[in-house]
Amino acid sequence: MLEQLKADVLSANLALLKHNLVTFTWGNVSAVDKARGLMVIKPSGVEYSDMQANDMVVVDIETGIIVEGDKKPSSDTPTHLVLYRHFRDIGGVVHTHSRHATIWAQAGRFLPAHGTTHADYFHGAVPCTRLMTRQEIEDDYELQTGNVIVQTFIEQRLDPMKIPAVLVHSHGPFTWGIDAADAVYNAVVLEECAYMSLFSQQLNSEITFMQQELLDKHYLRKHGANAYYGQDEQK
Amino acid sequence: MLEQLKADVLSANLALLKHNLVTFTWGNVSAVDKARGLMVIKPSGVEYSDMQANDMVVVDIETGIIVEGDKKPSSDTPTHLVLYRHFRDIGGVVHTHSRHATIWAQAGRFLPAHGTTHADYFHGAVPCTRLMTRQEIEDDYELQTGNVIVQTFIEQRLDPMKIPAVLVHSHGPFTWGIDAADAVYNAVVLEECAYMSLFSQQLNSEITFMQQELLDKHYLRKHGANAYYGQDEQK
Amino acid sequence: MLEQLKADVLSANLALLKHNLVTFTWGNVSAVDKARGLMVIKPSGVEYSDMQANDMVVVDIETGIIVEGDKKPSSDTPTHLVLYRHFRDIGGVVHTHSRHATIWAQAGRFLPAHGTTHADYFHGAVPCTRLMTRQEIEDDYELQTGNVIVQTFIEQRLDPMKIPAVLVHSHGPFTWGIDAADAVYNAVVLEECAYMSLFSQQLNSEITFMQQELLDKHYLRKHGANAYYGQDEQK
Amino acid sequence: MLEQLKADVLSANLALLKHNLVTFTWGNVSAVDKARGLMVIKPSGVEYSDMQANDMVVVDIETGIIVEGDKKPSSDTPTHLVLYRHFRDIGGVVHTHSRHATIWAQAGRFLPAHGTTHADYFHGAVPCTRLMTRQEIEDDYELQTGNVIVQTFIEQRLDPMKIPAVLVHSHGPFTWGIDAADAVYNAVVLEECAYMSLFSQQLNSEITFMQQELLDKHYLRKHGANAYYGQDEQK
Repeated sequence: MLEQLKADVLSANLALLKHNLVTFTWGNVSAVDKARGLMVIKPSGVEYSDMQANDMVVVDIETGIIVEGDKKPSSDTPTHLVLYRHFRDIGGVVHTHSRHATIWAQAGRFLPAHGTTHADYFHGAVPCTRLMTRQEIEDDYELQTGNVIVQTFIEQRLDPMKIPAVLVHSHGPFTWGIDAADAVYNAVVLEECAYMSLFSQQLNSEITFMQQELLDKHYLRKHGANAYYGQDEQK
Repeated sequence: MLEQLKADVLSANLALLKHNLVTFTWGNVSAVDKARGLMVIKPSGVEYSDMQANDMVVVDIETGIIVEGDKKPSSDTPTHLVLYRHFRDIGGVVHTHSRHATIWAQAGRFLPAHGTTHADYFHGAVPCTRLMTRQEIEDDYELQTGNVIVQTFIEQRLDPMKIPAVLVHSHGPFTWGIDAADAVYNAVVLEECAYMSLFSQQLNSEITFMQQELLDKHYLRKHGANAYYGQDEQK
Repeated sequence: MLEQLKADVLSANLALLKHNLVTFTWGNVSAVDKARGLMVIKPSGVEYSDMQANDMVVVDIETGIIVEGDKKPSSDTPTHLVLYRHFRDIGGVVHTHSRHATIWAQAGRFLPAHGTTHADYFHGAVPCTRLMTRQEIEDDYELQTGNVIVQTFIEQRLDPMKIPAVLVHSHGPFTWGIDAADAVYNAVVLEECAYMSLFSQQLNSEITFMQQELLDKHYLRKHGANAYYGQDEQK
Repeated sequence: MLEQLKADVLSANLALLKHNLVTFTWGNVSAVDKARGLMVIKPSGVEYSDMQANDMVVVDIETGIIVEGDKKPSSDTPTHLVLYRHFRDIGGVVHTHSRHATIWAQAGRFLPAHGTTHADYFHGAVPCTRLMTRQEIEDDYELQTGNVIVQTFIEQRLDPMKIPAVLVHSHGPFTWGIDAADAVYNAVVLEECAYMSLFSQQLNSEITFMQQELLDKHYLRKHGANAYYGQDEQK
């Protein structure tokens, strides 16, 4: 069942390692088959070196019920499910504790757009969620983590397809994309921008945001109807 | 004698290298056979590339007498012994000069819990010991290093199984765990958290501690009776 | 056509990877055949691992017309062309988003000469361009990026052969040299100096520039008529 | 002639690469045969990957005359010679532009002893030289670089065997030791300490020096008559 998707999800999980975004098992990737309403996700706490495509777990998106798999799915499964339910165009989700994105999350600060590296993939600042309430943490914590992400996008009127990332306060980043590989790509970009903005701000404490017109130019030359970067694709 | 434990200790020492926690020979791992009251520890100043399981030294925990081994044990042996004598549930100890944990130790500052990466493995701040007295340094220095660690845990009423790490002032970190591999695991986590907290504080000088309820949630979903992370184990 | 130059440009693009100056496809190198007035440049958005010498695109320097190649040239092609038209002695150009050079560009700050590593290759500060106007960004953006670089060198009376690099504001570095390999070399040096100066300034906020006589000494012992470094070449 | 010493010097130069202390050809190691009064040093500007033991250049320590070798010796040769002439017990010298030691040199600041990693190899702060005069820079620059190092040790009454390193202002580090390998070892330690002290100071701006008694304890347990670290040697 969903053999190709399982292979893609395994491959995306291994790509996190290759890009130095995870330590031990601290990352997870999922992807969905929208037609069937199913999500494929990494199992919980399994070593990357031992992981096989058949270890991936298949979960029903609406009900959260495990449809196939011998192993427990990632403990962050409910968060992934909330994102797929509300961000209907996304096809893959990544969660890591990558060092510099996590530094911003721990500081409780959104990541400003300081340059074209950011603008090429994120059409504005990457938001940071509010602190969660005691009740949200104690009851259905992973599901509420998804809810607070969605709330952030709704309240700040952000389009998750144009800002495919979020920093969860005191925790770390989630990114997404059209599929698992795209979500990994955005996780790499986020980490790169998080590193650079940290030190750009230290070098010049007066910088705020880059020019809106430069942000638009770079985002739109890669994304949307008039994109002209690359050979035959958006990225 | 203790062939499996020697192999485990060798393997744990080599894992320090793989995780970039040591330069040259600046790290050591030990583990214990509690039933026999014996500790196995790395020899002093031997290159990792030359080290064999048979180079590991066996020491009696209570007396400190070398029971087996051609080589001198690590010069930090008395510190390890003190930890095993007082922290009765631990099975492995690691000492490194890993860069970022050492940065906090050199600054004489405890490592606050700023995020869930920390909370997943340490149930609160990682303490920093007080400065040692002239007499402690001059007489039985390595043993007194152990004593000042134990004193820190007693005075601050910390449970070494819930905070399996310490920063020795002006020196560097010690970590421990249920066995040698677990102690190495905690050394990696400590280094990762030390890196991230250093820069989270620079990014937001007002952050103090993460929410207690979030700290509890993450620690307890991995550790203790109600843990639900991983396939069939606590980590 | 231009087989050797294509091989050199491919090789220089791969050297960027080896020196950790690029993530994904975020870098491009070109070189020119001055006698024929032609530029060879990396195609847009192609993976480094798949790239062949035959994928390189040949462009007429004066007209910008593609003379040979199945693929679209790098989207930064117009910037490269402007540099070759105005800096007549250069033979290769590199663009990257290398982390630390980009940090300075995002901060909108020129890179001061703080030490002999810098002085060995750059005879003074590496300038940062002004912000571009809305019109420059919206019309012929990549060509205007080249123009603003040239303007910076003219207004500050800089010799592009003595300062073979620039930081484009809110964007990243361009470097150049006598050929593609030399431009890559300068990109590596720039990144190294950008890293070191960032933290030298943090360590001593009062440092400004190094002594002019030391700058001259180091630059001139490697470059120009009286160079005495190396076996039989300037570098 | 001096085949073993040439092999040692080559091996030490390659060790700089392995320890990530050099970019391109920016490092050089020498060693001496004290009985014959000869120094063996790396050639100038030769790629490490191409270097052979026979490329090493033999120079007379007192006269500076090249005794053997087809290639030009490192341009820093006169600096090495001054060090051997004045620091009579040293057997090897290393020069690099390693990132963090160079950061301190560019900031014009000595490296304080903040922890036991430093104390294990340097019995006090690593000094930074004064700025050189215009005349020193213009005439016999490399020789004067050696002189200013020696002057620093004389004026500050430092023992070069106990502080086997210096930061040359606006330039970078020189280290030395009993032979080439020992000088490389000290270059690695210096870089490690330079990294850690940079950030320890940022974390706690009030730290000054570590306790003198702790400095003494660590230095003396590795060096001198009562050393007890390692199997059968001082380090």
